[in-house]
Amino acid sequence: MNFAVIGGDARFSRLAELLRADGHAVRCAGLERAGTACLPLEDALRDAKIVILPLPACAGETVNTPLAAEKIDLRRLTEQIRPGQTVLAGKPEGTLAELTPCVDYFDREELTVRNAAATAEGALEILLRELPVTLLGTRVLVVGFGRIGKLLALRLHLLGARVTVSARRPADRAWIECLGLEPADAERLNVSGFRAVVNTVPALVLDERVLAGASRDCLCLDLASKPGGIDFDAAKRLGLRTIHALGLPGRACPETAAAAIRDTIYNVINDLECG
Amino acid sequence: MNFAVIGGDARFSRLAELLRADGHAVRCAGLERAGTACLPLEDALRDAKIVILPLPACAGETVNTPLAAEKIDLRRLTEQIRPGQTVLAGKPEGTLAELTPCVDYFDREELTVRNAAATAEGALEILLRELPVTLLGTRVLVVGFGRIGKLLALRLHLLGARVTVSARRPADRAWIECLGLEPADAERLNVSGFRAVVNTVPALVLDERVLAGASRDCLCLDLASKPGGIDFDAAKRLGLRTIHALGLPGRACPETAAAAIRDTIYNVINDLECG
Amino acid sequence: MNFAVIGGDARFSRLAELLRADGHAVRCAGLERAGTACLPLEDALRDAKIVILPLPACAGETVNTPLAAEKIDLRRLTEQIRPGQTVLAGKPEGTLAELTPCVDYFDREELTVRNAAATAEGALEILLRELPVTLLGTRVLVVGFGRIGKLLALRLHLLGARVTVSARRPADRAWIECLGLEPADAERLNVSGFRAVVNTVPALVLDERVLAGASRDCLCLDLASKPGGIDFDAAKRLGLRTIHALGLPGRACPETAAAAIRDTIYNVINDLECG
Amino acid sequence: MNFAVIGGDARFSRLAELLRADGHAVRCAGLERAGTACLPLEDALRDAKIVILPLPACAGETVNTPLAAEKIDLRRLTEQIRPGQTVLAGKPEGTLAELTPCVDYFDREELTVRNAAATAEGALEILLRELPVTLLGTRVLVVGFGRIGKLLALRLHLLGARVTVSARRPADRAWIECLGLEPADAERLNVSGFRAVVNTVPALVLDERVLAGASRDCLCLDLASKPGGIDFDAAKRLGLRTIHALGLPGRACPETAAAAIRDTIYNVINDLECG
Repeated sequence: MNFAVIGGDARFSRLAELLRADGHAVRCAGLERAGTACLPLEDALRDAKIVILPLPACAGETVNTPLAAEKIDLRRLTEQIRPGQTVLAGKPEGTLAELTPCVDYFDREELTVRNAAATAEGALEILLRELPVTLLGTRVLVVGFGRIGKLLALRLHLLGARVTVSARRPADRAWIECLGLEPADAERLNVSGFRAVVNTVPALVLDERVLAGASRDCLCLDLASKPGGIDFDAAKRLGLRTIHALGLPGRACPETAAAAIRDTIYNVINDLECG
Repeated sequence: MNFAVIGGDARFSRLAELLRADGHAVRCAGLERAGTACLPLEDALRDAKIVILPLPACAGETVNTPLAAEKIDLRRLTEQIRPGQTVLAGKPEGTLAELTPCVDYFDREELTVRNAAATAEGALEILLRELPVTLLGTRVLVVGFGRIGKLLALRLHLLGARVTVSARRPADRAWIECLGLEPADAERLNVSGFRAVVNTVPALVLDERVLAGASRDCLCLDLASKPGGIDFDAAKRLGLRTIHALGLPGRACPETAAAAIRDTIYNVINDLECG
Repeated sequence: MNFAVIGGDARFSRLAELLRADGHAVRCAGLERAGTACLPLEDALRDAKIVILPLPACAGETVNTPLAAEKIDLRRLTEQIRPGQTVLAGKPEGTLAELTPCVDYFDREELTVRNAAATAEGALEILLRELPVTLLGTRVLVVGFGRIGKLLALRLHLLGARVTVSARRPADRAWIECLGLEPADAERLNVSGFRAVVNTVPALVLDERVLAGASRDCLCLDLASKPGGIDFDAAKRLGLRTIHALGLPGRACPETAAAAIRDTIYNVINDLECG
Repeated sequence: MNFAVIGGDARFSRLAELLRADGHAVRCAGLERAGTACLPLEDALRDAKIVILPLPACAGETVNTPLAAEKIDLRRLTEQIRPGQTVLAGKPEGTLAELTPCVDYFDREELTVRNAAATAEGALEILLRELPVTLLGTRVLVVGFGRIGKLLALRLHLLGARVTVSARRPADRAWIECLGLEPADAERLNVSGFRAVVNTVPALVLDERVLAGASRDCLCLDLASKPGGIDFDAAKRLGLRTIHALGLPGRACPETAAAAIRDTIYNVINDLECG
């Protein structure tokens, strides 16, 4: 099958290699600075059956191309798309979606789950690096029991940390308990006594009132996408150390992240063909 | 608060004790043979604010009372219910639901999750008892990745079994992978090479064609409620050993099961009061 | 290679099959009631290069043959042993060791470790069966941090029990901590608050004074060989439930146990040849 | 009790605080650059009952004082030691041991075990940081099954890595198996197919012949003290990426490491008083 891979970070350079290793013809554009052989956009697109745009796909009115020699305008790209070509994009936004029909592969749970596993490992790395104590025996609070919360809390627990997980739903707290973790009610969030607090909820849950309960040596790590769930200004006033870690899968394990995108793209194609 | 506990198995005898230990007034009927002090039905019900029926609540046209001195007719019961009394019942069926409004506490996920954890331990006990090999190093297939499948597969894995879990959805298979387990596609179920196959899916997934692939020393354990997911006749013809294990929480750990019901009942009451 | 397998329980019947499956010639005696094809003792021994006696090897002045048609006198056996034959026996005692040189294969740590893993699973089965609560969330004390203590405590912990392990040596308590478990000082053994106490120490550590601290619903499980480490009379006076579980590997997982003996016998033979 | 803490890295600055928090009088020297209040050597030593030297204690003919304003000569130190003072030192070497009697607290297994746990976490951090893949699903070889090998291999396994551990003794390989890990024979070390190889053995086990089997993207991490167990020159010739990580406990988790030293010092003192 013929693929075009247009733009993206190190994951997409690696994705092109993985697709080739599976026997596909792959042409790239907008990955020059990754050391990937690239063609002019028009040539890269010409024979492609599947056009892959990055994750996230857009940066304003251009494709998201942090490793390109020059920017690629969304309009210029979409004008080249011909009938019979399928565009797969990660979180396509307004302009792109208006200009051409495209399938959001980040919408697939098999990708978001694997991204969560990569994020959990990235968060572990940060905690191991930043804490002057071993995770073994250390009290950690994970705020939120979504994908990342689940996978991170389990890993911390297995490394011997004393993990509490906060959640609003009684059913989630029952899950937390049944996985051997300590549940806490998110409505009455109390961060005192924890050496690290890791937020995974995309809403302001760690506000000044809550943060005021933290001990001075508590590390506050936010994994939620911007603006995150920690009141960073308040944390600063309180003298708490904060880290807002974004894009961990691409930064911490581009190779695994690329393989997850590849598998998802195969699933999308398979569903399109079967549907 | 005044409770009436009417019927049920050992869990409900224990539940009455737990409610009393929390300071509530509790009157029982239909638990004579559990050694629980009982009153005539009318007296047990008279001052109750909350009437607790068992799980499952009904056995035909009577309350489910395996430990009662004599049966309790559903109609006789419901005629006693007065306005202001709240009836909580586990999986109330046709007649009961028609005769009186009642809240199904088994509908609450915090209870089904904890029941799943108890079921997982019950299944572990069966596997440990029935297999002539250690779970350590033994290949086990868990069919289905619902609550019980998740909790059982994780436990087997942590005990050193080589666990494969089958699921239909790619997202579930991604979860299986991210928990460190081996995923398998439920559409192409292959049981060959496993020493034990544990079904958790309430549909005929292990039919004759699939079972034919099992090795002769494979143990087939079905945890799904009747009729289960194994073709037991086919298994017999193939010479495979089968076990259909039902009601594990009540049988294997009545005390934990009673505590889970108590907590859920408190949550139900709380929601009714707040709602 | 020619083997003779003389006596033993179900493991040794299975061992004969495993050796044959590896291409060896195997003759048996004293396993008639296991359904194993047997020869008269003299014929079984005649061409054997390696003579395997059971674990334990002796029962008084006879070979330990719980599954034999008739007893085999140790003296009668040893008179048949000819130069060039190697006798491998599990825990050979006085008379046997006096009558003929033999190698104690139970002396090999690779066997005792695997036996400990099988014992740990057997103990799990007992706890799952006997406790009316889930292991999840239940406080369990493991007395002793030898092979069985280590492997059992880790498994209980991974199943979500709240595990304390007692040990005398500070180094062992450091190990206990580094495995994520709670250490306790064996010199100040305190059993109060535990739902189950599992002894693995072959000395009277759970005497009346210690047992007096146990709550009434505490299960006392002794895994140490006779006379065990629990004062059973005192436990009875105190109304505590006790179980003395012996020979778990052979009873709970004869197949794994047989494979462990086979591997060890190969290691012994290999060392004899190389030495 | 009166303590003198002389020299050392961040752990010893923290150790002084921990001892003070327990109510002891503590005077320091040679920790000026850690921000610790220091006295001239003579004043720090004068009233001390216990003199604590760092881990390792010596750097040539001086105390090991990476954070001191100026070097402290061993001879100058030992001349100040008076009868009745006890010197505790970590791995005291030739000159120091000749000049004054001292107790090696690093000789205590409770400290080496806890150091191994801290080292294992430090190694995890390196692997998480350096590998472009998640540990989940990645094949890792741990060479050696001593303290660090055990604790690291278990943690990697619990994070979902596919872990093989090499060991020479059959008993160790049985332990490896019983912990759910894959054993390999150290005599026939084969590194092919692993994404990371972590050495814990203080001997040249990963020589050119062995390293030649590694795939190009394999990361070779050496945790053994100098000169380590990897032939770094050969690795360079083969184009393999290597990291020699030393002193991880002090660098990665000084606070936990300080607490472990404190506990060990208390144990040493306790034993001296009781003995």
